[in-house]
Amino acid sequence: MDIEKVNSMDFGEFVDVFGNVIERCPLIAAAVWSQRPFLDLEDLQKHFFAFIDALPQSGQEGILRCHPDLAGRDLQQGTLTAESQREHSGAGLTSLGPDEQLRLAELNAQYRARFGFPFILAARLSDRAAVPRELARRLLCPPAQELRTALGEVKKISGLRLADLLCADPAKL
Amino acid sequence: MDIEKVNSMDFGEFVDVFGNVIERCPLIAAAVWSQRPFLDLEDLQKHFFAFIDALPQSGQEGILRCHPDLAGRDLQQGTLTAESQREHSGAGLTSLGPDEQLRLAELNAQYRARFGFPFILAARLSDRAAVPRELARRLLCPPAQELRTALGEVKKISGLRLADLLCADPAKL
Repeated sequence: MDIEKVNSMDFGEFVDVFGNVIERCPLIAAAVWSQRPFLDLEDLQKHFFAFIDALPQSGQEGILRCHPDLAGRDLQQGTLTAESQREHSGAGLTSLGPDEQLRLAELNAQYRARFGFPFILAARLSDRAAVPRELARRLLCPPAQELRTALGEVKKISGLRLADLLCADPAKL
Repeated sequence: MDIEKVNSMDFGEFVDVFGNVIERCPLIAAAVWSQRPFLDLEDLQKHFFAFIDALPQSGQEGILRCHPDLAGRDLQQGTLTAESQREHSGAGLTSLGPDEQLRLAELNAQYRARFGFPFILAARLSDRAAVPRELARRLLCPPAQELRTALGEVKKISGLRLADLLCADPAKL
């Protein structure tokens, strides 16, 4: 999809296509549509990031809380979004053994209890061995630092999702 | 549900219950959880409204764009949220004749083209005869005024949804 196509979309089409660039936050795509026309992928991404950065802390925490636990309830119940399902698969998180699942469930619960939002990691840049290691490490970080780290992961995830959508036909970019 | 029950919820439970108080914007419920504990229904509602009011205009427009057309595509395709489906039914919008549907579809399209967001009305406070009349009237309003009106309707809808959730057992309120 090229940027002219993106700029030609009405808000309904735009939200249909970009509504899950930020996991379960179609509000953000719907807000970014106000900033069209976009110059290119980088410019579009910039508007998503600017919206996140301008939110009050509660809103930033709200974004984090719309994300699923990695290899958690949504994976088990089949209620992951299509994008998150693919990212889980790519990192090998859909084929964990019982011990790995239990270990991750315990760490996820500790993390949620400590920070008030789920552990978020750009799974496509990681793998099943690294996830619990990184989770255990970040569990020890100060809350203010961890909020910044988590928002950085949200941006990595959304950047990859945007690139997927815009590069479906890379020759046109 | 009493307010102590609300205040005892972790963010996952809170978003499960209140995630659609603002139509298709679980981010807002997830952000409001940061403000707990809540004194009562009025206090909880106040935090939802404060979050909406503090958003930049693009974010407020984003909320509006997450709403379905009244008696539009989502109704026809069966993809309305449960809350919106009930509101449509209550106002008689699920049993429009072909002429009424066509008239409303035309007005909805004109409204979206003029304002860049869908026509929003608290359907439970209206009825099938009043909806197209009100739509035709609001089509003529200046955009800045119409943004305020539409956000006021979002607040009416969310107030009714919150009251439903909190008053399930009115004796406990």
